[in-house]
Amino acid sequence: MINEHYTHEAVILANGEYPVHPLPLQVLADAKYVVCCDGAANEYISRGHTPDIIIGDGDSLLPEYKKRFSSIIHQIPDQETNDQTKAVHYLQSKGIRKIAIVGATGKREDHTLGNISLLMEYMRSGMEVRMITDYGIFIPAQDTQTFASHPGQQVSIINFGAKGLKGKGLVYPLSDFTNWWQGTLNEAIAEEFSIYCTGEYLVFLVISDYL
Amino acid sequence: MINEHYTHEAVILANGEYPVHPLPLQVLADAKYVVCCDGAANEYISRGHTPDIIIGDGDSLLPEYKKRFSSIIHQIPDQETNDQTKAVHYLQSKGIRKIAIVGATGKREDHTLGNISLLMEYMRSGMEVRMITDYGIFIPAQDTQTFASHPGQQVSIINFGAKGLKGKGLVYPLSDFTNWWQGTLNEAIAEEFSIYCTGEYLVFLVISDYL
Repeated sequence: MINEHYTHEAVILANGEYPVHPLPLQVLADAKYVVCCDGAANEYISRGHTPDIIIGDGDSLLPEYKKRFSSIIHQIPDQETNDQTKAVHYLQSKGIRKIAIVGATGKREDHTLGNISLLMEYMRSGMEVRMITDYGIFIPAQDTQTFASHPGQQVSIINFGAKGLKGKGLVYPLSDFTNWWQGTLNEAIAEEFSIYCTGEYLVFLVISDYL
Repeated sequence: MINEHYTHEAVILANGEYPVHPLPLQVLADAKYVVCCDGAANEYISRGHTPDIIIGDGDSLLPEYKKRFSSIIHQIPDQETNDQTKAVHYLQSKGIRKIAIVGATGKREDHTLGNISLLMEYMRSGMEVRMITDYGIFIPAQDTQTFASHPGQQVSIINFGAKGLKGKGLVYPLSDFTNWWQGTLNEAIAEEFSIYCTGEYLVFLVISDYL
């Protein structure tokens, strides 16, 4: 199963809203290696933590932090990508493949859309990436896969061009969705469900309010 | 210009986070007709307002409100759509074509994606819909269009299958984007910009922090 025995080697704290749900907060607390995207470092540091590295030009950092953490600020000049992607590329260059991204949603909706859709690019480049929000877990996937779930867990599937989409273990049938909303609000029946198809798609597993 | 002299006839308050930015709050305050999606009515009412109609089964309403406003709760049985779409269909059945949607983003990301992508469906059915968030305005569009902007305004374009995409009055060139992030983080040069293409796309105009 694609999401069983998955352990990330590093965590990226992105530039969206700081997590509040216990799951992404725990992921951040347990992280062996934390990359902060520029301004995200402010709250992380103010909560008493020290990032392993800060990606960005440091312009969104509080002047005090910019000075104090200057040795771990890593600037990557590239107009074509955002800080989240720079952080992924940085980890990739260090041989790290399994990454959890937290704090990537909840502010500007175009940034949210961008950050979510970039998960597909990271998968294409060989990374195993999960985005963990206050509401659920995004898993980019391709071709037929089986996912661990729990009975009644809400599941959304966003199609990125996959063909022959069929589901097993889900309440509502799947088809070759062409608009994002069409695969939302499905539900797992039991401890696992499978998606059969050829091509790429994104799974969103809703996490419960209390862990 | 597609967004000039646009006046909505009704406002839908959707089930996401209640708006905090002055622009969506003003749109709500000035509305001639307000449709609340189920649970969204709770905060609207608690702030001293009265919706014209509440769409949904009323199950998310506070018991006190469910009783007090029972005469304006309008239940539309349809498993295939969400409350936002039911609200749009309701207005459409009353001959209303120009609608602003507020409060549609900011909670579950799959709901946010769903609600945003549904704008394309509403456009296809002949509606003129704008979604106004705390960060910007989503405008569904098709074929060549000109948009009012201000110099330096950030603009994102999400392609929904349009071909031959070219821009005028934008800092970065457009192309036939295949992933959502590719058209994000562009910028208007002056008081208007144009998008040339055949097909459908979504424009996000970032609003400034202070009006």
